[in-house]
Amino acid sequence: MNRRVNIAVIGTGRIGSVHTRNLVRSIHEANVVAICDIRLEIAKAVADELGIERVVKDYHELLEDKDIEALLIATNTNTHAFIVKDAVKAGKHIFCEKPLALDLGDIDDVMNVVEKTKVKVQIGFNRRFDKSFQRVREIVASGEIGRPCIFHIVNRDPEPPTLEYSQTCGGMFLDMSIHDFDMARFQIGEVEEIYAIGNVLMAPYLKEIGDVDIDIITLRFSNGVIGSIDNSRQCAYGYDQRLEVFCANGNALAGNEYENTVIKGDRVGYHSAKLPHFFIQRYAECYVTEVRQFLQCVRDDKPVSPTGYDSRMAVLLGEAAWESFRQNRPIRMKEFTG
Amino acid sequence: MNRRVNIAVIGTGRIGSVHTRNLVRSIHEANVVAICDIRLEIAKAVADELGIERVVKDYHELLEDKDIEALLIATNTNTHAFIVKDAVKAGKHIFCEKPLALDLGDIDDVMNVVEKTKVKVQIGFNRRFDKSFQRVREIVASGEIGRPCIFHIVNRDPEPPTLEYSQTCGGMFLDMSIHDFDMARFQIGEVEEIYAIGNVLMAPYLKEIGDVDIDIITLRFSNGVIGSIDNSRQCAYGYDQRLEVFCANGNALAGNEYENTVIKGDRVGYHSAKLPHFFIQRYAECYVTEVRQFLQCVRDDKPVSPTGYDSRMAVLLGEAAWESFRQNRPIRMKEFTG
Amino acid sequence: MNRRVNIAVIGTGRIGSVHTRNLVRSIHEANVVAICDIRLEIAKAVADELGIERVVKDYHELLEDKDIEALLIATNTNTHAFIVKDAVKAGKHIFCEKPLALDLGDIDDVMNVVEKTKVKVQIGFNRRFDKSFQRVREIVASGEIGRPCIFHIVNRDPEPPTLEYSQTCGGMFLDMSIHDFDMARFQIGEVEEIYAIGNVLMAPYLKEIGDVDIDIITLRFSNGVIGSIDNSRQCAYGYDQRLEVFCANGNALAGNEYENTVIKGDRVGYHSAKLPHFFIQRYAECYVTEVRQFLQCVRDDKPVSPTGYDSRMAVLLGEAAWESFRQNRPIRMKEFTG
Amino acid sequence: MNRRVNIAVIGTGRIGSVHTRNLVRSIHEANVVAICDIRLEIAKAVADELGIERVVKDYHELLEDKDIEALLIATNTNTHAFIVKDAVKAGKHIFCEKPLALDLGDIDDVMNVVEKTKVKVQIGFNRRFDKSFQRVREIVASGEIGRPCIFHIVNRDPEPPTLEYSQTCGGMFLDMSIHDFDMARFQIGEVEEIYAIGNVLMAPYLKEIGDVDIDIITLRFSNGVIGSIDNSRQCAYGYDQRLEVFCANGNALAGNEYENTVIKGDRVGYHSAKLPHFFIQRYAECYVTEVRQFLQCVRDDKPVSPTGYDSRMAVLLGEAAWESFRQNRPIRMKEFTG
Repeated sequence: MNRRVNIAVIGTGRIGSVHTRNLVRSIHEANVVAICDIRLEIAKAVADELGIERVVKDYHELLEDKDIEALLIATNTNTHAFIVKDAVKAGKHIFCEKPLALDLGDIDDVMNVVEKTKVKVQIGFNRRFDKSFQRVREIVASGEIGRPCIFHIVNRDPEPPTLEYSQTCGGMFLDMSIHDFDMARFQIGEVEEIYAIGNVLMAPYLKEIGDVDIDIITLRFSNGVIGSIDNSRQCAYGYDQRLEVFCANGNALAGNEYENTVIKGDRVGYHSAKLPHFFIQRYAECYVTEVRQFLQCVRDDKPVSPTGYDSRMAVLLGEAAWESFRQNRPIRMKEFTG
Repeated sequence: MNRRVNIAVIGTGRIGSVHTRNLVRSIHEANVVAICDIRLEIAKAVADELGIERVVKDYHELLEDKDIEALLIATNTNTHAFIVKDAVKAGKHIFCEKPLALDLGDIDDVMNVVEKTKVKVQIGFNRRFDKSFQRVREIVASGEIGRPCIFHIVNRDPEPPTLEYSQTCGGMFLDMSIHDFDMARFQIGEVEEIYAIGNVLMAPYLKEIGDVDIDIITLRFSNGVIGSIDNSRQCAYGYDQRLEVFCANGNALAGNEYENTVIKGDRVGYHSAKLPHFFIQRYAECYVTEVRQFLQCVRDDKPVSPTGYDSRMAVLLGEAAWESFRQNRPIRMKEFTG
Repeated sequence: MNRRVNIAVIGTGRIGSVHTRNLVRSIHEANVVAICDIRLEIAKAVADELGIERVVKDYHELLEDKDIEALLIATNTNTHAFIVKDAVKAGKHIFCEKPLALDLGDIDDVMNVVEKTKVKVQIGFNRRFDKSFQRVREIVASGEIGRPCIFHIVNRDPEPPTLEYSQTCGGMFLDMSIHDFDMARFQIGEVEEIYAIGNVLMAPYLKEIGDVDIDIITLRFSNGVIGSIDNSRQCAYGYDQRLEVFCANGNALAGNEYENTVIKGDRVGYHSAKLPHFFIQRYAECYVTEVRQFLQCVRDDKPVSPTGYDSRMAVLLGEAAWESFRQNRPIRMKEFTG
Repeated sequence: MNRRVNIAVIGTGRIGSVHTRNLVRSIHEANVVAICDIRLEIAKAVADELGIERVVKDYHELLEDKDIEALLIATNTNTHAFIVKDAVKAGKHIFCEKPLALDLGDIDDVMNVVEKTKVKVQIGFNRRFDKSFQRVREIVASGEIGRPCIFHIVNRDPEPPTLEYSQTCGGMFLDMSIHDFDMARFQIGEVEEIYAIGNVLMAPYLKEIGDVDIDIITLRFSNGVIGSIDNSRQCAYGYDQRLEVFCANGNALAGNEYENTVIKGDRVGYHSAKLPHFFIQRYAECYVTEVRQFLQCVRDDKPVSPTGYDSRMAVLLGEAAWESFRQNRPIRMKEFTG
């Protein structure tokens, strides 16, 4: 059956408008019946651009609409938990931007509600859908290069967040490294122990609020693999996204994508293009693929992934990283409950 | 003004359906009011997929519709000339797949009709819209690496065409190298002299109809640049698309794009991904960009490019290449009238 | 003045014979007057190959020879300390393979003797002489990409050492990572704190002796930089040697060298060459350059580098890494005295 | 038997001094007994540097010396023919820099003399000894990527020759492209037809003497392969040396080597090193390998390669290229006798 799933979008800001455009233009599994934002004029602009007829300010209206099967939630992180709970109670399937919440208690709260229902909840860890990261996972899973031994991620944002954003985002380990924690679990498995160091070398205002702008996180996995994550909040040459899994008989390395393939030679040497500016550009395709998968799972009644549990584990690792950073010692996940 | 242009598509086969999908899903400058194919069921399937309401079998119906401002023509090459002429007479702006025709007389015929009107005719030389090829052109135009001296294209298709297709496509110089002739003109300027050699080493059935499956074409440009084109009808590792402009103070080289960025190391060495399979994959973005530009030009009443003249010149070079191949001598374009 | 320095080589095994060949064939600053090995037949074979006339079994003979200005010591590590002490007392300038000793007390002992003389002692940390690692240092030192922030090394040997070798080499952190500790100091500066984890996933016999075959070492530098080192004793695709310094306004990355530049495309994708097998191949040029620099310093009476102090610091970091690994906690270098 | 071959060098200018240094320092198959240059002071300087005892001004002296088995001839091209003839008559084996002569008559003259003797004559087409070009040949010969179809060389010198040099060197096709003609024969086989175009766009003084500074040469080989050579006398980013053999089931591409492996990222993009400056740097290893092979063949009485015949064929192709350029038409080699 190729029927379209009736979906509404809640939150049409930066990432929400990207999702809405994708749903309308590129995801033929979707039928966008309404969009919602408390800043009604923002939702209206998106609706105008895309020819969407129904625009609402209060998401509760959507919960009452029996024709709506699924909701895509892209509001501020601190609203995810209660909107998701309401939506679950209303029986709507949910695609929710990452993370489900920054507070573990809130996440558990939501998950308790979800567990009692048949509602599907997929979390927007979009990088799992990148073709190169998936290819790395495939190669390792095939066993052709032996068992995994060392894991390494480089993840560098182009520009540090504003002070205002930084104050509510959970800090670098929860806001930025959280993607790498999820990728680590996706590629290798569960983490047993974590050690995190960091410093402020580029955005001095982050020091005042106890945050960092660079970090290195060391991981021990349950299966014996060891790994490290290398993060920066600032990166002059663009959005640096690399991943390596080193195995007993080889390695698999996902390199960066470039803005174009042109190489220029001159008296100084060779010059090539920058990296894509940021996640919107670099992971554009993933935003389509993850939502398409969600809708196919809703349509065909199959289990979604990544789930709320994955979101919980990533947040737990983020909190453990902060704990490790503050105490300056490795933290065993078994004993850490947030 | 951001108004949408009312457009209809004539011909919804392989490339026509790509265009139609792009128009509906990715090109917000377009309002697709109808699609047309003499094989009505093909057009209907596309219309169903994309939610297009009007489907017609005979394109004349569309010419009479005053609401339609523009037509995208993606029918068989041998029908381009008369459909375009009819459409021009009906005052419709036209985006026509390349080439306008294989016969120079037919092209001139069309152009004579167009000249007397204000109708815009853009030809689908999609490679002009590739970001890397455009970047090469920008670098050279900036003068930062000095005057252009040597031009080189590698253009290799994954698999040879069928015998049936080969019999009507104009042969390798007109069907395949034509893209390179247009790129040569786009990057460097007018060609003064051409010399073409070729052979059949992979698809023996091409020999019987006097066609070739590999060729090398040497070009002298009016501005003194010399260049070569290297074509193959078969290529094991995918769709090989490279371009270099060597200049007095440097070079600019557009390399291939790869299916992903993963590099695998093992006991034998390193292994990386294949190239995109064929033009539909490799130039996917260009198909969007060229039509978007066309619609913006229609909307804002600006001149389009590439034009019918560009199509004429590419065909002329293709015919001169055949002449050179048959006589095994360089052909001066000044004396060659097809 | 371009006079040659009279030098003798003590220890003509694997690395000693490489040095001797270089001295005779490629380093015109040298005049090799004698070579020495307690396994006399080994020294004789090298002498025959290279046309060296004097071969001795006991290095004391060389110490008495007033014509000999300099000694290159490439014996087993556990003999370095006493030979160097003897040689210093005899007034010979010394190029000694790394490390000076595995025991900090022995190193201090030697350095006390050296300090009272004008003898030059250079240690064979050959990687400092690699043109690409030097280029990274130059770029960072120039300030053109801003202050250094994150440091990363990948260093992977092709095959694990034998059990026998492993039992006396000081273990992975002292035998292998020691190169990376020196490189870290060379590129960034002094280390303030170190944290080391490791595991045995490929060479199970290392487990029995408490050694590891993979490790990740996290470093905090005094200047605020944070860094990590990623080591493996086994690497299927060759000798993996990479280094990155990420800075506030860019990065500098020294990649691998390959056995050749050939790329082969086929139906599977692209294939390129392996890495050089091991250090003898990869750092061949460095073995020449470091000794050439040593001889020029002797000849021109200039200070050598890296010194015994550098060797001491690298060993200290190796011991701290072991301590960190055993206690599973970060170790502050200020409090660590071995 | 590993005995050394007694060899003398005639001509110790730029390339001759490179050969002499290699013979003394890196080629243990050689025993350099004398060197010779009509500019005696040049030979003396080389001898001093390398500790060679015998220096002569007149090469006839060397011919009379029965201890000398082999001669390496690196004098001006216009002296090769008569020195080689004299040396052959004296029974000396000969390694002669390319080409044997610029005049086909002279070459034939020499070869007639050689044929009647058992003297070995190897010509210095050093690029045949490059590891990457050899690897391409191996891959193609293995048949793993199918039969060869298209051949392509890029060969660009960093700076144009002086007017003085240009007047006697035989012009671009004979002085520069000659290497590519030899490589074409080495990789693919005999050439059946050649077509050459060129222009002067960078070094205007070359126009006055009828020479060119860029050229493109098209080749048809006897085995059906078609190919092209792309040459420039000037190249801002260094000595550009690339080669591709495209086959029915894949391709093999030898890329450039770089001065180092460092990539620098900054706000503009990525930057990498230049190419080696010129042939002395790029082919340094080949100069060693080719002479080592020659001496091993002399020592073990095996046939050498490339031979005087190869030199003849390369010169013949160079002359045919000039003929093609002047007449602006393809030249069939069968009918072309220089």
